[in-house]
Amino acid sequence: MNSPYRSDKPLTFVLIHGSWADVHFWDGISAELRRMRHTVHALPYAGHDNDPNRRVTHAMIVQSVVDSIVRQGLSDIILVGHSFGGTIIQKTVEVIPERVKRLVFLNAFVLPDGQSAADQLPPAFVSAFEQLRAASPDDTIALPYPLFREAFANLGSKEQAEWLYRNTPVEPAGPLFEKLDLKKFYSLSIPRSYVYLMEDNVFPQTDEYSFHPRMSSRLGLYRLIQGSGDHMVTPRYEPGHVARLLFMGARD
Amino acid sequence: MNSPYRSDKPLTFVLIHGSWADVHFWDGISAELRRMRHTVHALPYAGHDNDPNRRVTHAMIVQSVVDSIVRQGLSDIILVGHSFGGTIIQKTVEVIPERVKRLVFLNAFVLPDGQSAADQLPPAFVSAFEQLRAASPDDTIALPYPLFREAFANLGSKEQAEWLYRNTPVEPAGPLFEKLDLKKFYSLSIPRSYVYLMEDNVFPQTDEYSFHPRMSSRLGLYRLIQGSGDHMVTPRYEPGHVARLLFMGARD
Amino acid sequence: MNSPYRSDKPLTFVLIHGSWADVHFWDGISAELRRMRHTVHALPYAGHDNDPNRRVTHAMIVQSVVDSIVRQGLSDIILVGHSFGGTIIQKTVEVIPERVKRLVFLNAFVLPDGQSAADQLPPAFVSAFEQLRAASPDDTIALPYPLFREAFANLGSKEQAEWLYRNTPVEPAGPLFEKLDLKKFYSLSIPRSYVYLMEDNVFPQTDEYSFHPRMSSRLGLYRLIQGSGDHMVTPRYEPGHVARLLFMGARD
Repeated sequence: MNSPYRSDKPLTFVLIHGSWADVHFWDGISAELRRMRHTVHALPYAGHDNDPNRRVTHAMIVQSVVDSIVRQGLSDIILVGHSFGGTIIQKTVEVIPERVKRLVFLNAFVLPDGQSAADQLPPAFVSAFEQLRAASPDDTIALPYPLFREAFANLGSKEQAEWLYRNTPVEPAGPLFEKLDLKKFYSLSIPRSYVYLMEDNVFPQTDEYSFHPRMSSRLGLYRLIQGSGDHMVTPRYEPGHVARLLFMGARD
Repeated sequence: MNSPYRSDKPLTFVLIHGSWADVHFWDGISAELRRMRHTVHALPYAGHDNDPNRRVTHAMIVQSVVDSIVRQGLSDIILVGHSFGGTIIQKTVEVIPERVKRLVFLNAFVLPDGQSAADQLPPAFVSAFEQLRAASPDDTIALPYPLFREAFANLGSKEQAEWLYRNTPVEPAGPLFEKLDLKKFYSLSIPRSYVYLMEDNVFPQTDEYSFHPRMSSRLGLYRLIQGSGDHMVTPRYEPGHVARLLFMGARD
Repeated sequence: MNSPYRSDKPLTFVLIHGSWADVHFWDGISAELRRMRHTVHALPYAGHDNDPNRRVTHAMIVQSVVDSIVRQGLSDIILVGHSFGGTIIQKTVEVIPERVKRLVFLNAFVLPDGQSAADQLPPAFVSAFEQLRAASPDDTIALPYPLFREAFANLGSKEQAEWLYRNTPVEPAGPLFEKLDLKKFYSLSIPRSYVYLMEDNVFPQTDEYSFHPRMSSRLGLYRLIQGSGDHMVTPRYEPGHVARLLFMGARD
C-alpha cells in the first residue's frame, strides 16, 4: 500500500520505442507499470511495427503517434521516448502539448533545434551508418552484430544478446538523417525528466557525445533519475528495475 | 563489533548545512553517526537557523562557526560542509586549521580563489537568482517549488519533496554573491575528502559545472567517496546511507 | 547451473597486474574465476615479481609476458590488464594477436600511439613522480602513503589501506616514461572491453584525464562494463564482485 512505487493516482504512460526496435521493446516494462496500477499504451508507429513503408519520414512517424493518442482520447499523458523515440516525443509534444503532463526521456536523443539524430553521432559512427545505408536495397540500416553486442547489449549474456539481435528489425534510414525544426519544443514549459541507465554504451560517455549529461542538459530544468543498465538488455531483462526508474521520473 | 562502519577511535564531526536549509538537515545523519559512536555537532550559523539577520555576510557566518567550535573547545574535527556549506568550511579552516583533522565536502561547493558561489552557476541559474533576489523585500531568495522538486529533490516522492519544501527557509542572498579570498585555503595541506551523491541534479553534470569532477578536482589530492543519492532527499530520508559514506570519507 | 556468471564454455584468462603491484594482486580474483570454472594464469613479468632488474624496459616486460604465454601454449586468451598493465596488453597483443580472443582493460591505461603512461597524467602528478624518481637510488618510484591512501585505496578502511601499502613494491620508473609505438595495436580488430570501477580516484574523473571515458574511448568499438569500486582495495577485498565484472567483459 505504502510502497514508494505505488501512487494513489495512477498515471497514463505512452511509450515510444526507438530505432532497431518495435513495440515489444516495452512488453516487460508495460507489465510492470500495469502491476503498479498505471495505464500503459506502447504505441506502434509509421514505418515500423506492422507498417512496411521504408520511405517513412519523421513527420509521418509523429503524425501516426499523434493520431493514436487522439483516437484513443488520451490526456494527462506521461510521454516516454527511448533512444530515437526521444526525437519523436520532442515533435509529438509540439502538436498536442495540452495532452502531455510530462515528458520522460529514457536514454533518449534530445535534439537541438535544426539538427538530426545523425548529427549527434561521432564521425566514425556516421560514416559507418552511411555505408550501411548505401549498401541497402531499400534505404534501411541493419545493425552489424558486433556493434549491437558491444554497444547496445553490453551487459547481456551471449544468449540474451543473440536473442535480442534475432528480433531486431532493420531501421528505415531516412528519419535518422532528417534535421528537425524544434523551435516550438524549446518554447514549451511542460515538465520533463531524464532517466539514465548508466552503462549505456551507444555513445562515448563524454561531455561531447553522451546521452547524459550532453543530451539531458538540453532540457533546461529537468528531473534526473539514474540507475544501472545498458541500452537494450536491461529494459528487456530487468523490466521491474526500469519501470521503477520510469515511475520516479513520471510521478508528480 | 567488527563492522567496517565502526571505528575503534570515535571521530568528532562538525556538520555545516547549506543554503535553503537549517541544522535539522543533519538530524537523521547525526543520529546515525552517533549510533556509530561518533561525537556530532551540527552547528547553526549567522543569518540562518535562529538568527533573523538577512544582511548577514559570509565573514559573519564563518565567525559564528569559528566561535561555536572554539567555545565548545572542539579539536581534531572532521569538518563537513554540504552544498554552500563547502564555502563555509573553506573559510573556517583558514581561521582554525589547528583544530581540523580533515575536511569533508558533501555535494558541496569548492570555490576557486576570488570567486563566489554565484560565479559557479550556469548563466540561466544566475539570472533567475538575481531576479528572485530583486523581487524580494528583504534581499533573500526563495526557491521556486519546480526548481526545488526537479533539481534538489529529484529522487523523492511527491510527499517527501513537498514536506521538505514546506520546511525550506528562504536564503539571505548576499553571501551567495560574495567573492572569497581563498589564498590561505589553497596553501593548507589538511587532508580532504569529497563525498558525492551521484544523482545530485543541482548542477548540470558536465565537466564545466558539476560538483564532481569540477568542484572536487580543485581539492588537489583528495579522497573520493561516491554513492547513489540526490541533493536534499537522500540526506534526509536515507541518513544511514549518507552517514556511512561520510564515515568512509572521514576515517583515517 | 544457470547462473549468469557460469558459462558452459570455460574461458582462459591471462591477468597482467599494474605498477606498484605483483601477481598477488590477482589472488582473490583468480580464485573466484576458477570457482566459475575458468582457467586463470596471473603472470609475473620482468622487473617485477621475482625479477629484481630495476633497469627493465617496457619491451622486456612485454617479451616476458609473451614468453610465458607461448611457453605454456596458451591460446584463445582473455588478456586482462589492470592499470599500467593496460599498456602491457596493448603491446603483447601486437606480438601474438592470433592467441588473443579478447582484450579486457580493468581501470587500465589505453595509450595513444607514441605516448607514455606519464604523458597521460596531470602535470602535478608527473612532476611529483619525476622528483620521487630523481630522489631514488635505483631509478624507482615509491608511492607516498597519503597518495596511496587517498587516490589508490580510497574506499578501504585504514587497516585495509595500511596492509595493502605494506605489501606495495616500489616501481621501476623507466617504463612509465617510455613512449610506445602502438600503430599495430590500432590496426587490430580483436574484440575489447573496458571494465570500469567507478570510484577509481587515481585520475581526476574529467573528460581530460579519466580512465573512463578518456582512456576507454580510444578503444573504438568496445564493450563497457561498470560497477562500484576503487583502484586497489576493491580488487583485493571484493574479488567476487570484480571477477563477475571481468566475466561480463570477457564472455562471448
